[in-house]
Amino acid sequence: MKLKIAVLAGDGVGPEVCEQGVKVLKAIEKKYNHEFTFTHGLVGGSALSAKGVPLPDETLELCLNSDAILFGAIGDPKYENSPDAKIRPEEGLLKLRKELGLYANIRPLKVFEPLIHKSPIKEKVIKNTDFIIFRELTGGIYYGEKSTSADGKSASDTCNYTEHEIDRVAHMAFKSAKSRRKKLTLIDKANVLETSRLWRKRVKELAKQYPEVVVDYLYVDNAAMKIIVNPRKFDVILTENLFGDILSDEASVISGSIGLLASTSIGEKSVLFEPIHGSFPRMKGKNLANPLATILSAAMLLEHFKLYEEADAIKNAVEKSIEHHITTPDINSTKKFAHTSTVGEFISEYI
Amino acid sequence: MKLKIAVLAGDGVGPEVCEQGVKVLKAIEKKYNHEFTFTHGLVGGSALSAKGVPLPDETLELCLNSDAILFGAIGDPKYENSPDAKIRPEEGLLKLRKELGLYANIRPLKVFEPLIHKSPIKEKVIKNTDFIIFRELTGGIYYGEKSTSADGKSASDTCNYTEHEIDRVAHMAFKSAKSRRKKLTLIDKANVLETSRLWRKRVKELAKQYPEVVVDYLYVDNAAMKIIVNPRKFDVILTENLFGDILSDEASVISGSIGLLASTSIGEKSVLFEPIHGSFPRMKGKNLANPLATILSAAMLLEHFKLYEEADAIKNAVEKSIEHHITTPDINSTKKFAHTSTVGEFISEYI
Ligand SMILES: CC(C)[C@H](C(=O)O)[C@@H](O)C(=O)O
Ligand SMILES: CC(C)[C@H](C(=O)O)[C@@H](O)C(=O)O
Repeated sequence: MKLKIAVLAGDGVGPEVCEQGVKVLKAIEKKYNHEFTFTHGLVGGSALSAKGVPLPDETLELCLNSDAILFGAIGDPKYENSPDAKIRPEEGLLKLRKELGLYANIRPLKVFEPLIHKSPIKEKVIKNTDFIIFRELTGGIYYGEKSTSADGKSASDTCNYTEHEIDRVAHMAFKSAKSRRKKLTLIDKANVLETSRLWRKRVKELAKQYPEVVVDYLYVDNAAMKIIVNPRKFDVILTENLFGDILSDEASVISGSIGLLASTSIGEKSVLFEPIHGSFPRMKGKNLANPLATILSAAMLLEHFKLYEEADAIKNAVEKSIEHHITTPDINSTKKFAHTSTVGEFISEYI
Repeated sequence: MKLKIAVLAGDGVGPEVCEQGVKVLKAIEKKYNHEFTFTHGLVGGSALSAKGVPLPDETLELCLNSDAILFGAIGDPKYENSPDAKIRPEEGLLKLRKELGLYANIRPLKVFEPLIHKSPIKEKVIKNTDFIIFRELTGGIYYGEKSTSADGKSASDTCNYTEHEIDRVAHMAFKSAKSRRKKLTLIDKANVLETSRLWRKRVKELAKQYPEVVVDYLYVDNAAMKIIVNPRKFDVILTENLFGDILSDEASVISGSIGLLASTSIGEKSVLFEPIHGSFPRMKGKNLANPLATILSAAMLLEHFKLYEEADAIKNAVEKSIEHHITTPDINSTKKFAHTSTVGEFISEYI
């Protein structure tokens, strides 16, 4: 298969983990006789420094002309504590999502048996946890009107949702539930928010088209408890943008390491794969960041193009690296940890 | 001391747990020669059924004429899944908060040593956790403009904050930090929200007045992880209304039982004490709900009026009830659990 892959490494540890993702994809390309091309594009803080904008036109162009995007991370502490900064690296990511119409962010959450002891949560609570979060990604308070009053003394953000925005991601979540354990949980704050009530109304309506799927509804505060207390109860979670941001990061603690979690963003014009761990600036350039989430994102990329055997080859190699303790310090409990690049090499060679 | 206490039992298990709270306060009144009067008022779903409004004028009047409010819980499943319901029980609570100017909700989170094994999180992670959440309670997206388009196909909610709203609760949190371990963490989403940037700006500014307090800033998604992975790192958490709702419920899982957690809401015209567990409709009327959170809310009420000895008497009696396993099923690991009313009686008699 021919695949044009845009590599947007971004900030912090993004570049070093993306390098391993590319390394592994090249190993797959060679072994299975595919033809992958990788083109790098600037985004986030690194684009801001080089070009003065967090999403240069060339990068957007590159993405639109590629079959898929491998994404690193975005965010730079330089901009974090300056509430007056005019442009932020994050805007690059938000604009990218919007321009590419990536309206669904899909984060599977499974416990990695060999690392289950790493989780702060008790083994008996999380054992066999297996759910997927569908987070709406191009609407809500992220994209609504924002303003600060002229005197700087008040500010506002607006959360908007339309039926159309809700329906398209909801259909995706229902279909996923249908192919899994047939349960869908909508998480909202319908006892307070008008937008949540629209979500609830639509999901109730769409549920009629998926009679085999059992639907339940949880308030976001309650859900934030249940995800930790009883994670096995969930199968498919559907939620809006901001709640999805919070809950999927919260849920990542179940897995034992956020360094293992991959995600897919999917929508109208493109498809993007990224680790969920973020830019982790303190770790930058140390060759110590865990590349497995990015490598597993590469596997998700292959699955998206139905290259299941290839994806399985990656997943097997990842398991082997864990078995042999060829892992970075965050998930390594022996005295001899491996560096980011060593993990990438081990996995490519194993393939 | 003379105290006029308004009792707003509300919905679900509210009435049965409030009854125990009142019982215990009466025991204190007798033992320490105080003069407490208790007047009941309707609120929430029960007010809706009886009076057609979730916060009748008499109730508001009663609250304004009382020294403190003991609150049960609000919420009724009858209204939950009807997105078209015109009035919801929750509006009673939101209106009450607004009318009484209860702008700060304070939730202390400590691990109860004898129940530490009940937590889904590992003992070594949560041992000695001790933090307080200051949640802004009368602003943000709860109170901003809401609307649904005429055709019902789109909806919106607005989040507003002013400097004034931020400053008053921030000062409270800074003062609390000063009297504790001198650390304050602001939780926001300043990489996306304009209101969060205003919070960050104000907190940076106010920090100058509290040079002994170390301030740090966390994005809400990151915070949702850190609270579970590293809860001991927190001392005082300050956050806006919706994030406070989500994070304080999430944090409650640390304690081992949400049935133990009390909260204070404080502000301009009144002070309100309530268990954080909510109305728990499935448990209603079974005499099985855990009354300890309400009883500990009663202790917080006494502390507010500087009746420290009295508050300690309650806390001691609560500890004794746990030691002797006179507890409801949720925290009882023996074969003989106690009923709600039995727990209340044991504690009053012990006092
Ligand atoms: C970097 C930030 C804007 C982003 C978000 O909030 O969506 C991140 O937290 C994520 O989840 O991808
Ligand atoms: C009942 C509901 C409106 C309320 C809130 O969201 O504030 C509750 O969850 C709380 O935390 O007191």
